[in-house]
Amino acid sequence: MSNLKSKIRVAILGYGNIGKAAEEAIKAAPDMELAGVFHHNDCLNCIDADVVLVATPTREVQKFATVLAARGICTVDSFDIHGQIWNLRSSLDAVCQTNKCVSIISAGWDPGSDSMIRALLLALAPKGITYTNFGPGRSMGHTVAAKAINGVKNALSMTIPLGTGIHRRMVYIELEEGADFKTVEAAILADDYFAHDETHVIAVDSVDALNNVAHGVNLVRSGVSGETHNQRFEFNMTINNPALTGQVMVSCARAAFRMKERGVYGAKTMIELAPIDLLPGSTETLVRALV
Amino acid sequence: MSNLKSKIRVAILGYGNIGKAAEEAIKAAPDMELAGVFHHNDCLNCIDADVVLVATPTREVQKFATVLAARGICTVDSFDIHGQIWNLRSSLDAVCQTNKCVSIISAGWDPGSDSMIRALLLALAPKGITYTNFGPGRSMGHTVAAKAINGVKNALSMTIPLGTGIHRRMVYIELEEGADFKTVEAAILADDYFAHDETHVIAVDSVDALNNVAHGVNLVRSGVSGETHNQRFEFNMTINNPALTGQVMVSCARAAFRMKERGVYGAKTMIELAPIDLLPGSTETLVRALV
Repeated sequence: MSNLKSKIRVAILGYGNIGKAAEEAIKAAPDMELAGVFHHNDCLNCIDADVVLVATPTREVQKFATVLAARGICTVDSFDIHGQIWNLRSSLDAVCQTNKCVSIISAGWDPGSDSMIRALLLALAPKGITYTNFGPGRSMGHTVAAKAINGVKNALSMTIPLGTGIHRRMVYIELEEGADFKTVEAAILADDYFAHDETHVIAVDSVDALNNVAHGVNLVRSGVSGETHNQRFEFNMTINNPALTGQVMVSCARAAFRMKERGVYGAKTMIELAPIDLLPGSTETLVRALV
Repeated sequence: MSNLKSKIRVAILGYGNIGKAAEEAIKAAPDMELAGVFHHNDCLNCIDADVVLVATPTREVQKFATVLAARGICTVDSFDIHGQIWNLRSSLDAVCQTNKCVSIISAGWDPGSDSMIRALLLALAPKGITYTNFGPGRSMGHTVAAKAINGVKNALSMTIPLGTGIHRRMVYIELEEGADFKTVEAAILADDYFAHDETHVIAVDSVDALNNVAHGVNLVRSGVSGETHNQRFEFNMTINNPALTGQVMVSCARAAFRMKERGVYGAKTMIELAPIDLLPGSTETLVRALV
């Protein structure tokens, strides 16, 4: 009982794959307790927590995070539309500053932990090129785009890394009764999501039979430290996608809580966080174990 | 000229391999200017800079950093005796708090950037094992230990990674006139630096002919995110050792300067830094480019 009071109370808003994975990560964290799981149509004013993980679809993140931050409650989201991240940060930052709380945005693996690696590698070798090669794994955005095509009953778009940041799209589709494969294929290839990459469309009997949440990344940089060329760095991972995203959000909930305790308010991306704030334990314990 | 006033003025104390590499990195940084290079027996009170890179031998770091921090000058060092890092941090932290400056300690690649990677991977998969495999590359500590053995004129100790954090030591020695190889070999194998690892001692005509500052690391973690096992991560690099160390120190000088500007004082290790503070440019530019 004595420990309960000091635990970080983390709630989850949205209970899809990522919300469920986040619940497991909260329960496994020694310094947290679950403050409830809420659905997107529940009463937001009823949520009482130190930090809320906004695990809703990405396009609903801003609306929910804004309401919560306006109540002074810290939030974490995994907003993943790269081109709109700065706008989300700007908008939420103002609300957080006014209401003295912290919102950590785009906290997943890309954007998220990969962003931290890219920032670190740029600091280690300021000149050079970084390539982020995704997959093999399912692209949510491309899968949704393929499902929206007329004649597609179900779809799965796999991202295949070809190196130097170039990707192949393997699109597996279940056709609707009476749909013509060639017509559907042409519509997918013409869609802006697919028109710029090598794309293959394959008709299958069951998309569900291919379902697999494995994903990965291969992030490479060759660059220059000072005047010294040929400095080479590589980060690889093969992971369960929602499990990692949920875990990253939970680790970021800890960072949000700590920053608010220190009186640092605002909206932050992961490159603005110190890795130590993601971890349970004292500074001394972590420095002794990790440095 | 208009830009000069806003540049971070960085001085170097100690002008060995790392000091020279740091000089190149300062000159390549768009937001810095070199505020002088000082030898360890120069007058410390004559140094006028925003940040001083203490690039002296590791055992002299504490003495110099303390004198500079007592003058309110930020410092960066690459102190690398793992077991003594917390003590250095504690001691310097008090001086920095009193004199309102920042000392970033153990800023190299290990301890340093590897520590940041280890911390991040622990946040991504809290349960599991991380192995840091060093090399192939020259170990400074083991080279110095071998040189101290009676009968050794010159030495080079290479660290060879065998996986799971186990290393082989390849010790190349030039014998002094009249020294007996078997006696010298036995003394090296009995030395505490070598007694715990597989060690091979090889007599060569010229240690200098083997000289090469290449080094590397292979850092692997297999762990659990939430309740999901088999999350796999790997970080590899092959680098010029002093060039990377000098660059890391220079990037950390930027972080020290920024933290002092924000009114955050004290001694910090790299796991306590946000990656964005290591980089030149505005928050908006960096978030847009990296997140």
